[in-house]
Order: sequence, then C-alpha cells, then structure tokens
Amino acid sequence: MRISELSEQTGVTTASIKYYVREGLLPAPERVGYNQSEYGTAHVARLRLIRSLLDVGGLSVSATREVLAAVDDEALPIARLMGTAQRSIPVPEGTPSRTAVDAIGRVGDSLGWHVHPSNPGILIAARVLEHYEALDLHELSALLEPFAAAADAVARAEVAIAVAVAAGDRDRMAAIVAVGTVLGDSLLAGLRRIAQESAAREARPDSTA
Amino acid sequence: MRISELSEQTGVTTASIKYYVREGLLPAPERVGYNQSEYGTAHVARLRLIRSLLDVGGLSVSATREVLAAVDDEALPIARLMGTAQRSIPVPEGTPSRTAVDAIGRVGDSLGWHVHPSNPGILIAARVLEHYEALDLHELSALLEPFAAAADAVARAEVAIAVAVAAGDRDRMAAIVAVGTVLGDSLLAGLRRIAQESAAREARPDSTA
Repeated sequence: MRISELSEQTGVTTASIKYYVREGLLPAPERVGYNQSEYGTAHVARLRLIRSLLDVGGLSVSATREVLAAVDDEALPIARLMGTAQRSIPVPEGTPSRTAVDAIGRVGDSLGWHVHPSNPGILIAARVLEHYEALDLHELSALLEPFAAAADAVARAEVAIAVAVAAGDRDRMAAIVAVGTVLGDSLLAGLRRIAQESAAREARPDSTA
Repeated sequence: MRISELSEQTGVTTASIKYYVREGLLPAPERVGYNQSEYGTAHVARLRLIRSLLDVGGLSVSATREVLAAVDDEALPIARLMGTAQRSIPVPEGTPSRTAVDAIGRVGDSLGWHVHPSNPGILIAARVLEHYEALDLHELSALLEPFAAAADAVARAEVAIAVAVAAGDRDRMAAIVAVGTVLGDSLLAGLRRIAQESAAREARPDSTA
C-alpha cells in the first residue's frame, strides 16, 4: 500500500511515518518505482507497536528503538527481552540506600526471588521506601510485603502468558512482553485506584476518622 | 526556629520555603519581631510531606495544594481523602470505550468492587486495555483478572493500615493515605520489575523462545 493508505489505516500522519523510517523504528518501505514506495501489513502492525510504546508507554524515541531491536532479536530470551523493556522506562537517578535494599532483599527472599542487582525495580522501590522512612511514616513500610506478594502474582501471570505464546509464535511473544511490560504499570495503577476506593468505602462507609 | 535552621534541617532552600508559604502549601511562620519569623516542628513535617508529593510523587503545585487541603480537612472520610490523592495524579484525557469499561466492570463485580463511575482508575486501566485490543494482543487482556486480584490485595492492605492508624491519630492517617496513594504506584511498579525478572528466569532459564 501507499504511504497515504498506511496513514489512513493506522491514523498516523505521513510525516510521522517518514520520521519513524528515518529514525530506524519502522523498516523502510519497498521501492516499487521512481518516487513510489510500497508498505505492507507488517508496517501496519509495527506502526501500532511504535505508537503504543511512544504515546501510551511514554518512551523516548531512542528507548523505543532499543525495545524494537530486542523484539526483533530472535535469539533473545524472555528474561532479557523483559529486562530491555524494563530499562526503557525512566528510572530515578542515584543509588538506593542499604536499608531499603536490604528490606526489599528480605521480602524477595521470602518469595524466592532471584534477580541481578542491576534490576531497575530495586532502585524504584527503594526510593519509595526511603521516602516513607524520611517522612517517618514507617507504617507504610509494612506494605512492602503485601505489595511484593501482589507483584509476584502479577509477574507470574505475565511470564506464563509469554511462555505460552512463545511456543507458537516468537514474534507475537516479543510484542506481548514489550507492550505488556511497558503498559502493565499503568493497568495496575488504574486497577489499584478502583480497588482503593472500593476497599475504603467498604471499611468504614461513613467514617470521618 | 529561623528559616535558615528549617532549611538546614530539611535540606530545602530558603527560597523554596518562602515559595511554598506564598503558594499556600506551607503555613506562614509566626512573626516574632520586626523582620523575624519563627518556624516550628510542624513546619518540618509539612515541608517533608510537600517535597514527597512534589518531587517524588511528581505532583504539580496546585495538585499538591489540593491534597494538603484534604489532609487538613479533619471531617473528610478516608475514601474521599484517597479520592483526592488519586485525582492529584495526572489522568489521560478522553472517554474510555464501552468494551473496556465493561471488561473492568466484570472483573470488578467478581471481586465485589463498588466504585463511582468517575474513579480515575477506570479511564487509566481502560486506556491500556484499548491499546492491547488495538494491537490485537488479546492475550494481554487475560491479565486483567490477575492484575485486578493483585490490586485488590494491595488496596485492602493499604486501607487496613489507614483505618488502624486513624483510630489513634487522624493527622497521621491523612499523611499516610496521601503519601501512600501517590507513591504506591511507584513501589508496586518497582517490585513488579523485580518479580518479572525472577519469574522469567525461573520459567525458562536458557530459553530463547
């Protein structure tokens, strides 16, 4: 199809399509004549993936490029593909405190977690625990255990789906891992807000305490 | 204490302290003489809370002002305080699709959730589901159930702590709900990354599928 048709089918402007090709996110179209290019259905799928990572996931162009390279690397194991998707999401700067890392390590041990110390989640979670402590809201640190158990259940469900899909279609698994990893935080955050309201109403419907 | 001492104790510059007073985030200090003001320990605690919401939570100044007003409103029930904290976090624009809202409604029913249709989590979660569908990655929609169950467990733990603290100290409960609601997404996101890596390694340590 022509670029105009690809644009129509995906809702992405022709200027953006050309930009993605220039930036190496979208494979170049096939040249079928002087000043004419042909895009295929693979471009439609890839374009949707690009927009999900950029617009919904909020990734930068270079982070999107790295995730797409991981998606395209057929030899990459699920764990490493997931790691690339994880690292594409901005992480706070700095080094986590020993106390926070130890607290996460203890709860991780209780759940049988084994991860590399460079996992970006350690710094993200540690930063929050550090703030709870700095605010002297140590009650919130008691949430580490139920939060970790919830994260464990969620991650197991994600990996189970990736493994099941990988058996039949590696490319599909890669798209699922990339999109699921990047957008999953948001799904979980949205559901948490609904569950919070529900639990708060249930606990003490008319309480002003 | 003087503003310089408050600045030293909290690591917040005197310019920022003055700005927060002007913006109504921090109560004005007591005037104890011509051109001299006295800050107390309440200012220290409030300043830490402000920085957590602004810097770590990433809230805007006006959103922070609204959350602090809710924290200060002694008559506000936990559910409404939580709702204010939730709405202080940016929400995507637009209206969620019927299909996505129905899917969330079904899983919510199965968990006994009761929420107002204006709960911001509905739009946040629906937007993600819409993207999964648009990308034709319907396998990811199957994650709605385990994600919702995890969100439910997390929210119940959060509310239980808020209720327990509220019995003894309403101000403390308010700070816990505000900070916990705003920073909880990040704690959960961090722990999810750790759990993902662990689950992926465990599932197929050397798999390239």
